[in-house]
Amino acid sequence: MIQNMLYFSEKGGVTVEEKIVKAIQDEYPEDFAWCYGCGRLNDVGHHFRTGWQGENTVSIYSPEPEHLALPGFVYGGLVASLIDCHGTGSAALALHRKNGHEPGDGAEPPRFVTASLNVNFLKPTPHGVPLKAIGTVHEIHPKKFKVEAEVYANDSLCARGEVVAVVMPSTFLKKE
Amino acid sequence: MIQNMLYFSEKGGVTVEEKIVKAIQDEYPEDFAWCYGCGRLNDVGHHFRTGWQGENTVSIYSPEPEHLALPGFVYGGLVASLIDCHGTGSAALALHRKNGHEPGDGAEPPRFVTASLNVNFLKPTPHGVPLKAIGTVHEIHPKKFKVEAEVYANDSLCARGEVVAVVMPSTFLKKE
Repeated sequence: MIQNMLYFSEKGGVTVEEKIVKAIQDEYPEDFAWCYGCGRLNDVGHHFRTGWQGENTVSIYSPEPEHLALPGFVYGGLVASLIDCHGTGSAALALHRKNGHEPGDGAEPPRFVTASLNVNFLKPTPHGVPLKAIGTVHEIHPKKFKVEAEVYANDSLCARGEVVAVVMPSTFLKKE
Repeated sequence: MIQNMLYFSEKGGVTVEEKIVKAIQDEYPEDFAWCYGCGRLNDVGHHFRTGWQGENTVSIYSPEPEHLALPGFVYGGLVASLIDCHGTGSAALALHRKNGHEPGDGAEPPRFVTASLNVNFLKPTPHGVPLKAIGTVHEIHPKKFKVEAEVYANDSLCARGEVVAVVMPSTFLKKE
């Protein structure tokens, strides 16, 4: 937890801000860093970032004012997008660790794509607070991982999702 | 098809542009028209629009340049978002029709929210062409509909999804 999360406490101790410090997306090769959800080179994307928290993975994101379903609540497509990139990022973290690497050690991580995405919206997601996706990663094949994700707003579980992510096939680089 | 789609043919006949004419989202009550995916009042949203095409429902959307997974391919989270709003829009169309109404007749349509969203990404979705989501709606309860959706880029089926949509509960309006 200490390795990957930063904690800020305001005087008085009422506000805690969490931030992923070492994210897998910071180290994707440049060709793979354009994703609208999580690519650091996509100027107008969401810049989702995913790191380890012990044996779980975490992404934290504060929705923009426009990311509404209706006033007061977060757009479900954004929650789905967060789970999507959290899933591919978590799979990349897991395979990277299996290969003996951690974000920040200089090694280039693997890049995954989403084969399937399932989201159950458990309750309306309040707007105006950071969302935290927490993932549990299961290897189901050396090139295929299942990531179970829970999305919290404050301490309230708002959505539960599952991503099946596969190592990016070479066909993705044919069309440039 | 004629009722809800506009066809433009360039001279020479090589380009056909399709557009939804009578979309259910054009008639959502103002309080429910702020969705980042499909709200006409959300200035910076996607403005997905969904209409009937015979017994099927259709949404058409051309991804913006930034909506990339990587160069040449559409971001999966955007495809999921399209399926999400296509699902709620299709459910609203179906219940509206069941109640004796069609978009454009002046009656206020029902508004749905997503209970669950499943997407299978069948192949990389090429960027630079309009995406067309085609839906088949099944009533599974008077207030709950299942929408099966197929997303095509040109004539290529790229993703298949399923949305369970429920009539928006009153709790969504408590927090204003």
